[in-house]
Amino acid sequence: MYPKPPHTPPPEHPRLLLRSRDVPGLREKRSKPEMKQVWDRLVSFSQVPIDGAPSCEKPDEAYLMEANALMYVLDGDTEAGGHARKLALRNVAKTFNPAYQDISRTIGRLMLAAAVVYDWCRDLLSEDERRYMAGHLRRLAQLLECGYPPVKEGAIVGHTSEWMLMRDLIGTGIAIYDEDPEMYDVSAGRFYAEMVPARNFFYPSGWHHQGDNYGTYRLQAELYATWVLDRMGAGNPYDASQGGMGYQWLYTRRPDGKLLRDGDSDNPLYAEDRYIAFFPLLYLMLGSYYEDGYLMAQQFREFKNITDMYVFHAFLFYNPDVRPKPLKELPLTRYFGSPAGIMIARTGWDEEMDRSSGTVVCEMRVGEYQYNNHQHLDAGAFQLYYKGYLAIDSGIYKGSSGKYHSPHNKYYFKRTIAHNTVLVYDPDELKKAPYVKDGGLVWPNVNDGGQRWPNKGRPPLSLDDLLKDKEFKRGEVLAHAYGPDPMEPDFSYLKGDLTSAYSDKMKQFQRSFLFLNMKHRDHPAALIVFDRVVSANPDFKKYWLLHSIEEPEIDRSRTILSRSEDGYNGRLVNDTLLPAPDDQEITAVGGPGRSFWVFGTNYVNDFPETKEQGEWRIEVSPRTPNELNFFLNVMQVQDADAPEALPTGTVEAGQLSGARIGRWIALFARSGERLQEELTVSLPPLDEAAPHSWNVVIADLAEGLWTAIGGDGSSSLSHAPSPSGRRTVCEVTREGGILYLPGWTGALRLIPPGLSG
Amino acid sequence: MYPKPPHTPPPEHPRLLLRSRDVPGLREKRSKPEMKQVWDRLVSFSQVPIDGAPSCEKPDEAYLMEANALMYVLDGDTEAGGHARKLALRNVAKTFNPAYQDISRTIGRLMLAAAVVYDWCRDLLSEDERRYMAGHLRRLAQLLECGYPPVKEGAIVGHTSEWMLMRDLIGTGIAIYDEDPEMYDVSAGRFYAEMVPARNFFYPSGWHHQGDNYGTYRLQAELYATWVLDRMGAGNPYDASQGGMGYQWLYTRRPDGKLLRDGDSDNPLYAEDRYIAFFPLLYLMLGSYYEDGYLMAQQFREFKNITDMYVFHAFLFYNPDVRPKPLKELPLTRYFGSPAGIMIARTGWDEEMDRSSGTVVCEMRVGEYQYNNHQHLDAGAFQLYYKGYLAIDSGIYKGSSGKYHSPHNKYYFKRTIAHNTVLVYDPDELKKAPYVKDGGLVWPNVNDGGQRWPNKGRPPLSLDDLLKDKEFKRGEVLAHAYGPDPMEPDFSYLKGDLTSAYSDKMKQFQRSFLFLNMKHRDHPAALIVFDRVVSANPDFKKYWLLHSIEEPEIDRSRTILSRSEDGYNGRLVNDTLLPAPDDQEITAVGGPGRSFWVFGTNYVNDFPETKEQGEWRIEVSPRTPNELNFFLNVMQVQDADAPEALPTGTVEAGQLSGARIGRWIALFARSGERLQEELTVSLPPLDEAAPHSWNVVIADLAEGLWTAIGGDGSSSLSHAPSPSGRRTVCEVTREGGILYLPGWTGALRLIPPGLSG
Repeated sequence: MYPKPPHTPPPEHPRLLLRSRDVPGLREKRSKPEMKQVWDRLVSFSQVPIDGAPSCEKPDEAYLMEANALMYVLDGDTEAGGHARKLALRNVAKTFNPAYQDISRTIGRLMLAAAVVYDWCRDLLSEDERRYMAGHLRRLAQLLECGYPPVKEGAIVGHTSEWMLMRDLIGTGIAIYDEDPEMYDVSAGRFYAEMVPARNFFYPSGWHHQGDNYGTYRLQAELYATWVLDRMGAGNPYDASQGGMGYQWLYTRRPDGKLLRDGDSDNPLYAEDRYIAFFPLLYLMLGSYYEDGYLMAQQFREFKNITDMYVFHAFLFYNPDVRPKPLKELPLTRYFGSPAGIMIARTGWDEEMDRSSGTVVCEMRVGEYQYNNHQHLDAGAFQLYYKGYLAIDSGIYKGSSGKYHSPHNKYYFKRTIAHNTVLVYDPDELKKAPYVKDGGLVWPNVNDGGQRWPNKGRPPLSLDDLLKDKEFKRGEVLAHAYGPDPMEPDFSYLKGDLTSAYSDKMKQFQRSFLFLNMKHRDHPAALIVFDRVVSANPDFKKYWLLHSIEEPEIDRSRTILSRSEDGYNGRLVNDTLLPAPDDQEITAVGGPGRSFWVFGTNYVNDFPETKEQGEWRIEVSPRTPNELNFFLNVMQVQDADAPEALPTGTVEAGQLSGARIGRWIALFARSGERLQEELTVSLPPLDEAAPHSWNVVIADLAEGLWTAIGGDGSSSLSHAPSPSGRRTVCEVTREGGILYLPGWTGALRLIPPGLSG
Repeated sequence: MYPKPPHTPPPEHPRLLLRSRDVPGLREKRSKPEMKQVWDRLVSFSQVPIDGAPSCEKPDEAYLMEANALMYVLDGDTEAGGHARKLALRNVAKTFNPAYQDISRTIGRLMLAAAVVYDWCRDLLSEDERRYMAGHLRRLAQLLECGYPPVKEGAIVGHTSEWMLMRDLIGTGIAIYDEDPEMYDVSAGRFYAEMVPARNFFYPSGWHHQGDNYGTYRLQAELYATWVLDRMGAGNPYDASQGGMGYQWLYTRRPDGKLLRDGDSDNPLYAEDRYIAFFPLLYLMLGSYYEDGYLMAQQFREFKNITDMYVFHAFLFYNPDVRPKPLKELPLTRYFGSPAGIMIARTGWDEEMDRSSGTVVCEMRVGEYQYNNHQHLDAGAFQLYYKGYLAIDSGIYKGSSGKYHSPHNKYYFKRTIAHNTVLVYDPDELKKAPYVKDGGLVWPNVNDGGQRWPNKGRPPLSLDDLLKDKEFKRGEVLAHAYGPDPMEPDFSYLKGDLTSAYSDKMKQFQRSFLFLNMKHRDHPAALIVFDRVVSANPDFKKYWLLHSIEEPEIDRSRTILSRSEDGYNGRLVNDTLLPAPDDQEITAVGGPGRSFWVFGTNYVNDFPETKEQGEWRIEVSPRTPNELNFFLNVMQVQDADAPEALPTGTVEAGQLSGARIGRWIALFARSGERLQEELTVSLPPLDEAAPHSWNVVIADLAEGLWTAIGGDGSSSLSHAPSPSGRRTVCEVTREGGILYLPGWTGALRLIPPGLSG
């Protein structure tokens, strides 16, 4: 059915979750202060009388089994071992109604607990008792939603890829392997053949595609397999790049304790005034296994106490040798590479919740693959936080009308229209894509003007499926760079091609993001977004979107989004430089009855109590129909009550177009191609209000050593630089394609590689 | 806010659920054998120690409160009264999370139980304690989903019209009225002003529009108001026709213990092999209040024991003077009049579950109003059961993909296409009706060719709303009759105009149903359906639908639907007589992946374990586009292994068209109008296989005394009947418009009223 797994359980016991070599380390852990709450709880579990009527007050008997088995394996406590045996024998025969939703989680946990007793207390069980337990464990396996053998659902998303296969079936299979190798062979067989390659594909990006809500849960489940198989003696089943996972939620954490949002997220909700905590073993398992102090520190930031369901595993996996490390040692920008292609740029770190913190957090997203399920059609989107959530990912996974199969979810929240990216409205789109499918169900589609559903909305079933016909490929990173200081970069830059995220209504969509950390108290940062959008038909209207919580104030080309309520005090000032003022149309959409507006219909979410789902957006469109349009928007953040924004303006220089803001100039190639010829830029004159010199960023340059020459521009290549000028040779990398030239004035000539020698 | 209720609580206590005059009767009930289980349980509730930790084993403290209060009111047991007081004082202060779904049911029950203590144990409570409890009762009222004052939701469907207003708020208001009249005034005020008129509108039909699943639940809730207000001393708040409610579920009960299905029903599911039981107090409250032995008998047929939640109310409401009566005393046909317009015809009664029973059950539905919510777009539909569910209402309210807001529910199950009625496919329908709305949400619509959603899918909010612009009116009964024996009728006839159920794509849709109880073991019954369908455009294709569980066998104009599996042994043989054989097209649609097919899409339901949701249908269409089409289908039932079906054929006679089956002839006016002129019918010749005479049913006749004259047709009106003929004068009623002439041969002349004198 599946290839034999490459590793098999060793001929010794215990081997499930620990080997005898692990026991001394576990004994020591009991006295660690970080484990006090966990250990005390386990001790109390082992002291609960095991007879008498069940009651709501009594912990689940699976936990009592585990705790008693632990006392037996640590101290040879035969009374505890006897209790574990008795509990396991009576619980393993329990019946379940498989029709209850998610009953597999309960069944699986019972299986694993009974398997622990089977493995750890083996010498207390007679051969008959082992046969009885193994028989019941197979019976329970057959009740699981994933089927037994576990052939159901795909290998990339879905419940099979949560605890069922990753922990419970493999774990139980390890325990009973001597008597019945089948459960391990089919479960670990499928795991190694299908789940591992799919994860090794995206782990190198360091980004989980299922978002903050579901990605954290699924990664935690995946880590069980890491631990269970490694403890068995098989080593890490995955690529070591799993150790870079988890950082996405450190980097997207906002100073107010929430996170930038990703996919089917309800994160602002269950913790409107609290520091958001995900799943209790996520960072503990990651940090302990990969000996990563930053992740371990996050564990204790999120959890002071571990809940009953997790104490046993927390005790088994916690690595007391990993000392927490402070966030501020981390670089402020992190690039999550292919197949994610997402960059997070920050201007600081916060260890606690602080709505007045000056930290800016910005997400720039290409997102090269669309896996569906809980992921959104959000290729090209950005988010921005400063003293409030300003450029938001809108909509919410909550409320009677917001969950997975609701119209809010299907027609708004998951769609491009709910994100800060670009729409191209083809009025005939539904003729080509009349349906959305998922989970075996089918709905009529709606036209939001946005990105297409690969596979009609259904997730890929395997890595082959994901890769085979490129339907799931939605974008490609064209360039990424940040610097000059890798710890506290002035600029963070990402460029992607997002054409394939759309149907053939889109001929080309390239987006360049440039985040500037201006390191100034009154003007902390700006995000410049430059788009080259070519539609298949000039009459397909284009919309550039920017979502917000509070109502936008639009004054000609300038839009102000504030977050001034609820103890926040930030604002975003966006200047739309392209389309040019006489060809631009900026409209605010939103407010009561129009918060989730999709071309005539409000796909309402009735969850009433938060604001983070947003209520407004602006739509920027060109007035004149054209195949090719550029959008250039300069977004600066400042305090909501700050006096005035930095001046901005367009800068044109031959094949380059761009913007200035304050003392910064950013230029991009209008062709979208990497330029390889001599370029000349006349830097704007300095005036009294202006700075003494310009920091110039030029993107879209060919790889190699470029020579920058300042002055009046009259000096030729063959001559020495004019006295007013200066000459610098800078490397443009293939990955970055970008040049950063701080402190220039007057004219600037750029000599391409090969000509400047 | 609302008009003052017409009745107020009397100045005495107790008055909630009982008055002192009721106490002797309650004392006597304790020794009734029918109450043994209920009383024993109440006694055991009163003996549960009220202190100590709560546990799962312990009944809800609301039940303990009620039981102790009951012991106090019956026997003056002050210890029990003290317990009730103590429990009430501590429980009334409980906190609830209003975000939990349906938490209002728990809160309301606690309110009512505390109100019982407040009212019944009043002399055990100090004034301070009463003030404390009344304050908390108001606090709890404010947590209810209906709001307080209870202004939320409409007055016709929805949760407010369940227990919240009908029982808990009015009940609590009665208890605290002396100290705080507001709760009673606003609750009973709204109830009398809005809920009562809406129910008095449909109660006279005897049919609850929300179907077998939701109608039973809502009617039970409505009966609480009957009991609570009557026991208070206000008499029956509703029209006495409430006493005819409940019979729909006696009549639609099939011999296999299930029911014909109606609306959002999952009735075959939770009891695939059991006798379906609805809600435990439905028939007890109806039968006891209205002293109806047939309904009381149904109570004991469905419930041998009453569950904990209901024992207290069962004891209070049970009327031991009502003796159960057997079903077989009831007429076999019942007409549920306006505004329902539904007729159920049976050929027998069954007291127990019996899949081999020879009872046929047939539903013929006009359904004059569409209330939405759990009601389906099923105007004109029929169902037929004989030794298996043959002509079915397809789809199901179950499974992860079948519940209220699922695509299966919204695009198939609720739609006309899932029912045995007629579609007219206007390809542009979605331009006029692009959306479906409900509960504040909006979805894209799909075109199933069927009936329109009044109010875009949302329910009416009040009786005024239902009646004001006729949008909710979807049909009209044109005629109904059964006879000649009112207890065991040979024919049962219903005719309706269903035009307004459709958009303006339909110019006229009249359907005539004629059910024949042939009282023959091998040929127990037939249903003849005659349709006159006029579409606005000849190119709008018409579909006549007949749904089944097993795959149809189609042989030219004959279709056989069997139910031969699972212990059933019935079949339906349908002969499509119109459109004529050379103009008819009969297609089977269904099977794996097409069970719930809506013009290209299968709106799947993944609930796997039953068959009653159906899998197949036939579609009968004319081959030639025409504005006007007739459909004439003759469906006879017999054993699945019976040798041969009765012969059938068309009969044409001037302005009449119709069918013959066996010794029966049924004729209808082709114009759809009531005829008032002389009519001549040449009855088919008799042959050896044929019967000795014909039973002739002629519909669509004007009111009055018609004269039927037999013979060779040559005798004129002014002469005496020919020796071969006979002369009979029969009354055609205005309601029926139908003539039944058993045992005729040769030619038949019908002389209209006024001419035959």
